[in-house]
Amino acid sequence: MINEALPKIWYGGDYNPEQWDDPAVWDEDIRMFKLAGIDVATLNVFSWALNQPDEETYDFTWLDETMDRLYRNGIYTCLATSTAAHPPWMARKYPDVLRVDFYGRKRSYGGRHNSCPNSPTYRKYSRRMADRLAEQYKNHPGVLIWHVSNEYGGYCYCDRCAQAFRDWLKERYTDLDRLNKVWNTRFWGHTFYDWEEIVPPYALSEEEEYNRTNFQGISLDYRRFMSDSLLDCYRAEYKAIKRHTPHIPVTTNLMGTYPELDYFKWAKDLDVVSWDNYPSIDTPVSYTAMVHDLMRGLKSGQPFMLMEQTPSQQNWQPYNSLKRPGVMRLWSYQAVAHGADTVMFFQLRRSIGACEKFHGAVIEHAGHEHTRVFRECADLGQELHRLSDQLLDSRIEAKVAIVFDWENRWAVDLSSGPSVALRYEQEVHKYYDALYQFNIPVDMISVEEDLDSYSIVIAPVLYMVKPGYAEKVESFVNSGGTFVTTFFSGIVDENDRVVTGGYPGELRRVMGIWAEEIDALYPEEKNQIVMKQAKGNLRGTYECGLLCDLIHAEGAEVVAEYGDDFYQGMPVLTKNRWGGGTAWYVASSPETSFLKDFLSTLCDEKGIQPLLKTPSGVEVSERRKKEQPILFVLNHRPEMATIHLGERPWIDLLSRQTVTGSVSLPGKDVMILSGF
Amino acid sequence: MINEALPKIWYGGDYNPEQWDDPAVWDEDIRMFKLAGIDVATLNVFSWALNQPDEETYDFTWLDETMDRLYRNGIYTCLATSTAAHPPWMARKYPDVLRVDFYGRKRSYGGRHNSCPNSPTYRKYSRRMADRLAEQYKNHPGVLIWHVSNEYGGYCYCDRCAQAFRDWLKERYTDLDRLNKVWNTRFWGHTFYDWEEIVPPYALSEEEEYNRTNFQGISLDYRRFMSDSLLDCYRAEYKAIKRHTPHIPVTTNLMGTYPELDYFKWAKDLDVVSWDNYPSIDTPVSYTAMVHDLMRGLKSGQPFMLMEQTPSQQNWQPYNSLKRPGVMRLWSYQAVAHGADTVMFFQLRRSIGACEKFHGAVIEHAGHEHTRVFRECADLGQELHRLSDQLLDSRIEAKVAIVFDWENRWAVDLSSGPSVALRYEQEVHKYYDALYQFNIPVDMISVEEDLDSYSIVIAPVLYMVKPGYAEKVESFVNSGGTFVTTFFSGIVDENDRVVTGGYPGELRRVMGIWAEEIDALYPEEKNQIVMKQAKGNLRGTYECGLLCDLIHAEGAEVVAEYGDDFYQGMPVLTKNRWGGGTAWYVASSPETSFLKDFLSTLCDEKGIQPLLKTPSGVEVSERRKKEQPILFVLNHRPEMATIHLGERPWIDLLSRQTVTGSVSLPGKDVMILSGF
Amino acid sequence: MINEALPKIWYGGDYNPEQWDDPAVWDEDIRMFKLAGIDVATLNVFSWALNQPDEETYDFTWLDETMDRLYRNGIYTCLATSTAAHPPWMARKYPDVLRVDFYGRKRSYGGRHNSCPNSPTYRKYSRRMADRLAEQYKNHPGVLIWHVSNEYGGYCYCDRCAQAFRDWLKERYTDLDRLNKVWNTRFWGHTFYDWEEIVPPYALSEEEEYNRTNFQGISLDYRRFMSDSLLDCYRAEYKAIKRHTPHIPVTTNLMGTYPELDYFKWAKDLDVVSWDNYPSIDTPVSYTAMVHDLMRGLKSGQPFMLMEQTPSQQNWQPYNSLKRPGVMRLWSYQAVAHGADTVMFFQLRRSIGACEKFHGAVIEHAGHEHTRVFRECADLGQELHRLSDQLLDSRIEAKVAIVFDWENRWAVDLSSGPSVALRYEQEVHKYYDALYQFNIPVDMISVEEDLDSYSIVIAPVLYMVKPGYAEKVESFVNSGGTFVTTFFSGIVDENDRVVTGGYPGELRRVMGIWAEEIDALYPEEKNQIVMKQAKGNLRGTYECGLLCDLIHAEGAEVVAEYGDDFYQGMPVLTKNRWGGGTAWYVASSPETSFLKDFLSTLCDEKGIQPLLKTPSGVEVSERRKKEQPILFVLNHRPEMATIHLGERPWIDLLSRQTVTGSVSLPGKDVMILSGF
Repeated sequence: MINEALPKIWYGGDYNPEQWDDPAVWDEDIRMFKLAGIDVATLNVFSWALNQPDEETYDFTWLDETMDRLYRNGIYTCLATSTAAHPPWMARKYPDVLRVDFYGRKRSYGGRHNSCPNSPTYRKYSRRMADRLAEQYKNHPGVLIWHVSNEYGGYCYCDRCAQAFRDWLKERYTDLDRLNKVWNTRFWGHTFYDWEEIVPPYALSEEEEYNRTNFQGISLDYRRFMSDSLLDCYRAEYKAIKRHTPHIPVTTNLMGTYPELDYFKWAKDLDVVSWDNYPSIDTPVSYTAMVHDLMRGLKSGQPFMLMEQTPSQQNWQPYNSLKRPGVMRLWSYQAVAHGADTVMFFQLRRSIGACEKFHGAVIEHAGHEHTRVFRECADLGQELHRLSDQLLDSRIEAKVAIVFDWENRWAVDLSSGPSVALRYEQEVHKYYDALYQFNIPVDMISVEEDLDSYSIVIAPVLYMVKPGYAEKVESFVNSGGTFVTTFFSGIVDENDRVVTGGYPGELRRVMGIWAEEIDALYPEEKNQIVMKQAKGNLRGTYECGLLCDLIHAEGAEVVAEYGDDFYQGMPVLTKNRWGGGTAWYVASSPETSFLKDFLSTLCDEKGIQPLLKTPSGVEVSERRKKEQPILFVLNHRPEMATIHLGERPWIDLLSRQTVTGSVSLPGKDVMILSGF
Repeated sequence: MINEALPKIWYGGDYNPEQWDDPAVWDEDIRMFKLAGIDVATLNVFSWALNQPDEETYDFTWLDETMDRLYRNGIYTCLATSTAAHPPWMARKYPDVLRVDFYGRKRSYGGRHNSCPNSPTYRKYSRRMADRLAEQYKNHPGVLIWHVSNEYGGYCYCDRCAQAFRDWLKERYTDLDRLNKVWNTRFWGHTFYDWEEIVPPYALSEEEEYNRTNFQGISLDYRRFMSDSLLDCYRAEYKAIKRHTPHIPVTTNLMGTYPELDYFKWAKDLDVVSWDNYPSIDTPVSYTAMVHDLMRGLKSGQPFMLMEQTPSQQNWQPYNSLKRPGVMRLWSYQAVAHGADTVMFFQLRRSIGACEKFHGAVIEHAGHEHTRVFRECADLGQELHRLSDQLLDSRIEAKVAIVFDWENRWAVDLSSGPSVALRYEQEVHKYYDALYQFNIPVDMISVEEDLDSYSIVIAPVLYMVKPGYAEKVESFVNSGGTFVTTFFSGIVDENDRVVTGGYPGELRRVMGIWAEEIDALYPEEKNQIVMKQAKGNLRGTYECGLLCDLIHAEGAEVVAEYGDDFYQGMPVLTKNRWGGGTAWYVASSPETSFLKDFLSTLCDEKGIQPLLKTPSGVEVSERRKKEQPILFVLNHRPEMATIHLGERPWIDLLSRQTVTGSVSLPGKDVMILSGF
Repeated sequence: MINEALPKIWYGGDYNPEQWDDPAVWDEDIRMFKLAGIDVATLNVFSWALNQPDEETYDFTWLDETMDRLYRNGIYTCLATSTAAHPPWMARKYPDVLRVDFYGRKRSYGGRHNSCPNSPTYRKYSRRMADRLAEQYKNHPGVLIWHVSNEYGGYCYCDRCAQAFRDWLKERYTDLDRLNKVWNTRFWGHTFYDWEEIVPPYALSEEEEYNRTNFQGISLDYRRFMSDSLLDCYRAEYKAIKRHTPHIPVTTNLMGTYPELDYFKWAKDLDVVSWDNYPSIDTPVSYTAMVHDLMRGLKSGQPFMLMEQTPSQQNWQPYNSLKRPGVMRLWSYQAVAHGADTVMFFQLRRSIGACEKFHGAVIEHAGHEHTRVFRECADLGQELHRLSDQLLDSRIEAKVAIVFDWENRWAVDLSSGPSVALRYEQEVHKYYDALYQFNIPVDMISVEEDLDSYSIVIAPVLYMVKPGYAEKVESFVNSGGTFVTTFFSGIVDENDRVVTGGYPGELRRVMGIWAEEIDALYPEEKNQIVMKQAKGNLRGTYECGLLCDLIHAEGAEVVAEYGDDFYQGMPVLTKNRWGGGTAWYVASSPETSFLKDFLSTLCDEKGIQPLLKTPSGVEVSERRKKEQPILFVLNHRPEMATIHLGERPWIDLLSRQTVTGSVSLPGKDVMILSGF
């Protein structure tokens, strides 16, 4: 349980009462929060300038009053540290807090997420703010959790960052010879003879555009360094807080598949993972499901917080559609179904000025409760109160794991060739989606995760194989596991240096194949996966494209061959027996129907069954609490769906009815079924 | 009359004889001007560097000679002040004249419209140049009008502008508390404690791209400030000139719907409005008509100058088509039909070097009169001489007004959400175009304009409602007027702060509706306007899209409902009786056929008749002189059109024939019909 | 012969053994080079930082060893000077070596081709490096040729370049009056009174985007100046080398139609032209053929070097397809067929780190010879050994010449109007391609080339006519030649100033036409070329578009007229008799079928026969050695083609067979036929 003070699914969101001076508004907020069943408010996210009007003055009066007022009315505080945007006076007095952007331009004051992570001023004052806040509120009974800064992100390229980068490199590589070696600096005459010669990779040095670089090794290390720099900022606040309130959990809100930070590394310093879920209208629901699973995977399955979602509209999309009736509730339960123990919004009351005023809120500009959005929020609030702690702390069990690695993603994104169309997270999602369609639970895991508990491990486009990982895979397969990897895997080490001798490098032994060439297809070009004979659900011919590894079997069984081009007849799908298990290589990017047939075949072999067989568009997820299954049935379709539950009787925790056999579930509706 | 010295429609244009050193060329110019009926030449537009070779020397010899030569040959001068491009020596000696661009880059010398409007050097020397010129030519009989600078525009973001912005803000808001309030700076922790902390909104502070901002209030004020800064430059020259020649009118050439300057504010300081008309090949003719009406509206209906148009080709379009035969004449008369008392070109003779050498001219590179373009120019020149002063000073009478407001436009453009597809001027044009199709005269008016003389006032997307405007609308409707507004209206005050309590804010009472939500549709998405029953010309179902306000009637009659989506059956068109008049709300962006049926119904109700019923593509406009109507019939189609004039006889001022009944008008041809 | 030490077609490529520290790798390289028939390796291209670890130390140990090892194994060296990327220490110690980019941003250390060409430091140390290398290796028997720097290119806009630009201008124009005149600076008030007022044209002065300028004259001169600045860098190294090794040829590798350098001017300082051929997958084979001919034309037909091509994949295309089997050999022979005496690759062994690691190589990452790519390389190596010196030094004879001029191209690219769609090199290629389809040899010539040896000279879009060129054309036509030019020709002088009096200016007399207007068509718009009567192979109607000159015949015969628009019936194709010859004017951009019919008609008239009539997709080129023809038959199609050789017997130098009559040539295969 995140904090036992509130033993239910927390319900609330970002609240900025400091934007109103009228106490009548604050009272009205309380009245409406109660109507909506709100029990937690995130405060102080962007109030640094208000809290600290100058270098020496700290004034938390407004915060004292707000937290007291909320607490008196039964509403807890998720207490932010306000350090995600420095005050104007600080930028003026200490320009080192301002970032230098990717184009080498020193920024002026403005925006948010605007502080140089290696600015001494920012480090000093953000840590001090965390310290002062924790000192101030260490005994306040309303504090449920700490929320450090907000949505960390953005890189800086200033001289101080350059110097810190050199220090980070010295720490990592000790001597320049090693650095020159791992960066392969004899290419294009880059040999460094002095650490001071090194500059960050940006638009005026090694990168033409972000992710287009001359030196992958340098750019990769700068991503590591920047992720670490921002993490250091977080850690400093974390430590300052923990000194005062060691027992209150601390988090910062993450952003799903946000590219700039290595969230697996970050998660180690978070007491609980929290994240902000803002799908676009065309984001597949299975993508959102995957990201929830990824956020759960950051801390190996521990429940997480849904820190932000919009009650209805966003403002920063090109076309900001309303969330249709029922969708907010449906997506809230989707989060819970995948491991969230909170449902929280940005924001509780809409601002009236600046760029987020057209972002949805529980309390809209109309200001009263007679709106569709408020009614939906209030209905959900009541439901969550009724659910109480029944779902809390339940866990998800998966026999299938998909590997996701931020450093591998960076390396793939930075690659010059073979194809600009290759998007790591899309390839990962293709595999996830096929399993999702069958309602087969999946864990999204890091390369550090232990594999023993899984039957099947899938590592799409594992371009970078880190030290020891090939051995881990070999051991997993040897012990009976099924391992799947794909084209463009096993190419480089952790510094993006090619492992020579034949792709997929260190994975070559366990895969039993050798990849000689990698053909890049134009978007409209296709090849075929031609099954040599039917295998499980696999039969006939499938389309593939993007990249085609031209592989040779070296012990592996050739299960399917290319159907076209000069490499027609070469293997495209191979299976290698290794000890007690098998290793599959998918040499191109296949169409969905292939992946469904392929992965269902593997699951069948391993005895992994769908949680429930449902019509397309109906998602089923399961959390278990003390061995008791809780089944979430989510109808993402606009129309009614018939669900066959089988003979076992379930209790629907929302309707409080016992259900069994065939059940009708209206469009956008949800059932949460508890086993007896 | 702009200047009684030349009592006819002025005919001429920009003339740069200083680009040729050969007196034979100048003589040839005179000969050809006479052939073409040219009687006014705009001189000295870009001759600052020539006139003032260094800080202390002024040399107008070439200008003296040119003006004398022209005047001797019956050609007047529109005298520019040459301050639209500073000399190279000035940029080198006083770099403060150079602008800092949106990306924070100090510019080097080059281009035009290149001076920082708050540069002390620019202010000093531009004012002094105006003073010297006026001193020099105050008694020259050839000077018809002053032309200050040229096409003012472009913003600067230098430190001096930043300081001037702070001063402007102090003047406007007096104290920082008020500033923090109207900018809503508690959002994202922006509280300012010192004026010096404020920086202009640009790419390195609050704006990611132009019109994409974090703080709408700041960005809005910077647009106001920059428009004012450039206006101050104009005013300084204006005053310097007026000291010498109080009776000669002064103008500067505007650019239609140019976004950066608040032309309604500017027009107050212009003796006569003048503008440059450069439609693209795909600009609808009704759009050009609207802009002419807008330019006329800047000074409440006073005749204006067509200062520039091209005789044929432009050079800065991607594909610079020739103006087809007859089109230059047709578009010239379109200007006159909408209130222009001049027809002037850029340019009289084509330059041979630099970037405008492929822009059309009366005298082409061939250099002689045996070109299609010259013949068309000369024919028009003769016609204008024959027309003499018959059209001069005539006025247009309209019972329908459409509101246009630059500050509202800025606010709409700056809005983050709900849709990037919303373009204020396009929504305004949709309403204009429907009336244009019926040949119903329209005034384009500011929010300051008195409404008493109108029967119908239309204010599309009146997102920003300024203090007192709602009362003005209420009073207008109460007195019997018909008022129309649309979705996304009444949202914010003059600082872009939302008026809470329900959209459309201050307009809610008079409209009798409440807008709960605003849905944004994708470009390909549509909804329907379903008439509850036929009303006037409105019947059946129409398409709508872009934005859909989800409104509730609060007293208003629901005339049509949405036909689709979860808000099917909610009102989309409402009519509210208020005192003696009615107020209509159009809750979405409708297709053209709806607007034609809707607005013709309103006109029918008010007894507003088309000037003439004509085939599509034939425009009719009317100017009145001493109560005498003058009808312009413009056939924009390539083919012949039959015009039914009815029984009344007219004199065609061009053909000198009496016409009545049905008349054939060839493609691209024009009739100017005078009543007896 | 480039160097008699190796009297065969050189075979090899870029080799960077310094990227590996393991002697076993170097030995393996030698073993595989021998297998592949490699006899030349380009060394030291990017090793400056390695060779010169600090300001005073030079260390060529690795190079000594490498050259010796290669030479001992029969492999020669193409010795680069390593100055295409300065060392990091130099950038840190002497920042003047770093460029300022088009946006005015001083670059940090990174990339390659990164030195300011006017940096005193770069000039000093690059010259010294060339000197030291030449001193070191002047007696090494392995040095076949010098390779100065690498792929020169990229402009700089720093203050030093600005100063050097002013000096260059003083040299060129002597006085400011002349400069103001040729730049037409009275336009937009640009009169310069001091040389110091002049700044380079870039994003912050006269150019909004590259090639979009306010002043064509300034931008044109900056291109000339930058081309000269880089050429000066080359010349300095050239001279330093020649002092030591006057008899070893010196080159630098060019890049085909690379826009930034005037290669005709550069070629004068190259002992032999060399270039890097990197077609995209959608580059027409006839475009590659044209570029080969252009490279040959740089030195008036002298054989050139194919310095770089990829054995298979590139890495910097969006989608990097593999070269299909046979294509590398086919394209290698295409180069030879057009005049190359070498076949060389980038690269011999693939790097394992940085941005070119996915670029193909003779030795792939697998590291052994059992790859398709290696086998194809080795097969070709053996073939070239067998061919020995049979093809060496042979020449191509063409009766048709196409004019290509870099300065004209710059001027066309810089033009503001009439159409952004006009691409000089594409219009040139259209004419080339029509002749290519008929296997008619073409010389690509400069405007300085003598025309006497040609029957037909084609100068598409000769927008800029330099002093004396019109006279040269007149003399050529007068003597019986056939001259063809097109729309948008004869417009400006060498400073981009329009020649007034009527287009095509100085060409008007010989063409016998006058162009009054130039219409620009939208991409989807078309007009027609309607033949007045059949003429040779020309008959009926053809499509045209892009630009349409509205021309009048002034003595020329009107052969075809426009079929559409208001200029229907005006001439679009004219033929003027002038002395003993004829001058054709093509007033619009025609479709391919017109050009085939038109140019074949001209060839027929001049008795110019195809080398061979072949099916489409089969290219034939001819080199002659001591009057002996050598015919290259290249089947670019994937499928077999039947070639009719006629009765004459030939020896196929590849198969050593005698062939005659009809021969089958497999897809992607090649025959090299030698006459007896």
